[in-house]
Amino acid sequence: MTFKESPLKPKMTHEIKVIEGVSMASIGSNINYQERDDLLLITFSKGTTTAGVFTKSSTSSAAVAWSKKNIRSTDARAIIINAGNANVFTGKAGFDAVKKIVSTTASSLNISKKEVLIAQTGVIGEPLDYIKIIKCISNLTKTQKDDHWLAGAKAIMTTDTFPKHYSLSFKVGNKKVNITGIAKGSGMIAPNMATMLSFISTDLNISKNILQKLLQEISEETFNSITVDGDTSTSDTVILSATGKAENKQVTNQISEEYLSFKTALFSVCKDLALQIIKDGEGASKLITVLVRGTSSKKISKKIALSIANSPLVKTAIAAGDANWGRIIMAIGKTNLKLNLTKLRIIFGNHIIASNGKRDDDYNEEIVSKYMKNDEINILIDFGKKTNQARVWTCDLTHDYIDINGSYRN
Amino acid sequence: MTFKESPLKPKMTHEIKVIEGVSMASIGSNINYQERDDLLLITFSKGTTTAGVFTKSSTSSAAVAWSKKNIRSTDARAIIINAGNANVFTGKAGFDAVKKIVSTTASSLNISKKEVLIAQTGVIGEPLDYIKIIKCISNLTKTQKDDHWLAGAKAIMTTDTFPKHYSLSFKVGNKKVNITGIAKGSGMIAPNMATMLSFISTDLNISKNILQKLLQEISEETFNSITVDGDTSTSDTVILSATGKAENKQVTNQISEEYLSFKTALFSVCKDLALQIIKDGEGASKLITVLVRGTSSKKISKKIALSIANSPLVKTAIAAGDANWGRIIMAIGKTNLKLNLTKLRIIFGNHIIASNGKRDDDYNEEIVSKYMKNDEINILIDFGKKTNQARVWTCDLTHDYIDINGSYRN
Repeated sequence: MTFKESPLKPKMTHEIKVIEGVSMASIGSNINYQERDDLLLITFSKGTTTAGVFTKSSTSSAAVAWSKKNIRSTDARAIIINAGNANVFTGKAGFDAVKKIVSTTASSLNISKKEVLIAQTGVIGEPLDYIKIIKCISNLTKTQKDDHWLAGAKAIMTTDTFPKHYSLSFKVGNKKVNITGIAKGSGMIAPNMATMLSFISTDLNISKNILQKLLQEISEETFNSITVDGDTSTSDTVILSATGKAENKQVTNQISEEYLSFKTALFSVCKDLALQIIKDGEGASKLITVLVRGTSSKKISKKIALSIANSPLVKTAIAAGDANWGRIIMAIGKTNLKLNLTKLRIIFGNHIIASNGKRDDDYNEEIVSKYMKNDEINILIDFGKKTNQARVWTCDLTHDYIDINGSYRN
Repeated sequence: MTFKESPLKPKMTHEIKVIEGVSMASIGSNINYQERDDLLLITFSKGTTTAGVFTKSSTSSAAVAWSKKNIRSTDARAIIINAGNANVFTGKAGFDAVKKIVSTTASSLNISKKEVLIAQTGVIGEPLDYIKIIKCISNLTKTQKDDHWLAGAKAIMTTDTFPKHYSLSFKVGNKKVNITGIAKGSGMIAPNMATMLSFISTDLNISKNILQKLLQEISEETFNSITVDGDTSTSDTVILSATGKAENKQVTNQISEEYLSFKTALFSVCKDLALQIIKDGEGASKLITVLVRGTSSKKISKKIALSIANSPLVKTAIAAGDANWGRIIMAIGKTNLKLNLTKLRIIFGNHIIASNGKRDDDYNEEIVSKYMKNDEINILIDFGKKTNQARVWTCDLTHDYIDINGSYRN
């Protein structure tokens, strides 16, 4: 089953920067998809530091359990990823499969098992024919290349309609540093983390501790601030690796200029990849940004933003180009939070819809309806102050979402 | 805009029992709909006790604020209901409109303002042309009839495709007691309470205190256990009135046989009305019952049941007749609760899908796929014990939901 390409697909004309110390190879293992690569092996040079964030799902996968446990204590030297079968809720057999795949990869690369991470995405609950994966590993370890990022992005796709990647460079002192990331995800996208895999590498030299903290902080405002359908995956994994090949003095604190430059760059990469996921949201025809501010905390602002972004009634109205802002009021209300609405302003784009807790006197439905025809819709919910801002990205809910999800397994 | 009748519409061939002491009349006020009644006045004889439960939305309506406040201290003698405009987020003007409608109704009936409740449903955020309502009130007070229940059920409809009513009789000692209820609701249905209005009357003689407690208890397992889209309304209201005309000795405690008979009967009425709402869920083609048990509390069981019932991925799979039970695993997981999955069983109808925390060895997708073609799908999630059971009803997510909600206001 293939799906038509998202109308929101960005023009990705940028060059994908090779990251010194990172290699990869992909192959078709045939576990689910035919005639396409579905297995990816990424390897890192010795001395690479790695960090990871994972789904918080109560039914998370054996792969997540393995990677989450090992990345804490050990820097990864390899990640093996398969698409088509998530190996979730597969009992002891599922855990055994993970061990077998990881061991074989480790032996083949002559590294320790703990240095191998694993990520799996696809159908839940189906037993995984891991032998098919095992058989491919020696081929993968022999064909590692440094310029395989685009092919890698394609190999991890499931219902994605385009491969997702982003690259940029920045300066640390007089040294040029690169970051490149790939991602997959299209449905079952909601914090935390969205059915999403992302693998980001940089040649920066940075300590593991700082890398982990930064990835968590940035994920919260990027990968954990996107939602397609409010459905959280069992398998979400983001791995950030830093090979140190830029040969800068190691970044070890959060106040240095180097750290701040990297933070800005990493935020751009994560945000761009997260937005690509939303733009490829199942059935998406519009990108919606919801910004909430002026509540008593960032957490409350985010809760309200997510309530709006996950509301089927809001999303179907926007799909239809209907300025049905009453549903925004409903979605704010269904948080059941204690809120002061007297100064509440709602703004779509530049158009003030509501002010002082009621419809704005100058509201003109005709003008706003024209705005609703855009591909990108910006919604601002302002409780009267500029503080405690939270931003969430989502897409609309269309007939294509129903088609895709009524036929995903068929 | 009219919608095709729900394929799940029940055959409502039962007789609607008149409740002595309850009268009503309806009329077309033209505030939104043309050529149909959209305004209903229900009146109760002196001595009627009344109870109510309301939405917990943070953006609840002026009507909810009025009714919630007054029903606590005063027994209602009248309820005035309009469909087509919910008068929500309409600022001071909205509250003034409620006062004007209530005062006019009270004067016309020669009762106190506090004895008049109000419920409003329809579009949110649009100023209400309450003058149109005021003009109809004297006509409504003059045309009260006791056999107007079906017309009443029709007058309160919004996107509903059929009027909802239920009636039954039971014995208290040698006295026959009747209960009749009407309801509306179709989308924006989620606890608490679902975009739903329901007005239920009985001729039982029962104290206000007991009536209120019972309505809350039963609502939790009926009206607050249904969800169409997870979107909670600003206007949900259930009013239960007991006229006392059955002339039984007043029910004043929760252990008497009379109380228990009434409780059973009221549960049946509320459950039937709640299920009618789900069967008329926007775009519904299947009724889905999710039963969760064996967790550490009823609250946790209900949270898991709602997570499944509100998952767009579960609902689109069921709409397509796909036994994609992996999405049930995902939906359990996205609660982020600490759960013991080792004994988890998942059963669709009589078909064991999963047992002992993995796919059941005898699982046969072909047989289960046949089961998924039914109009009614029963899902049991069993964590290994029969305790702490919670049940939630929902419907599938279809193309018709998108059509209805992309065009509701047009």
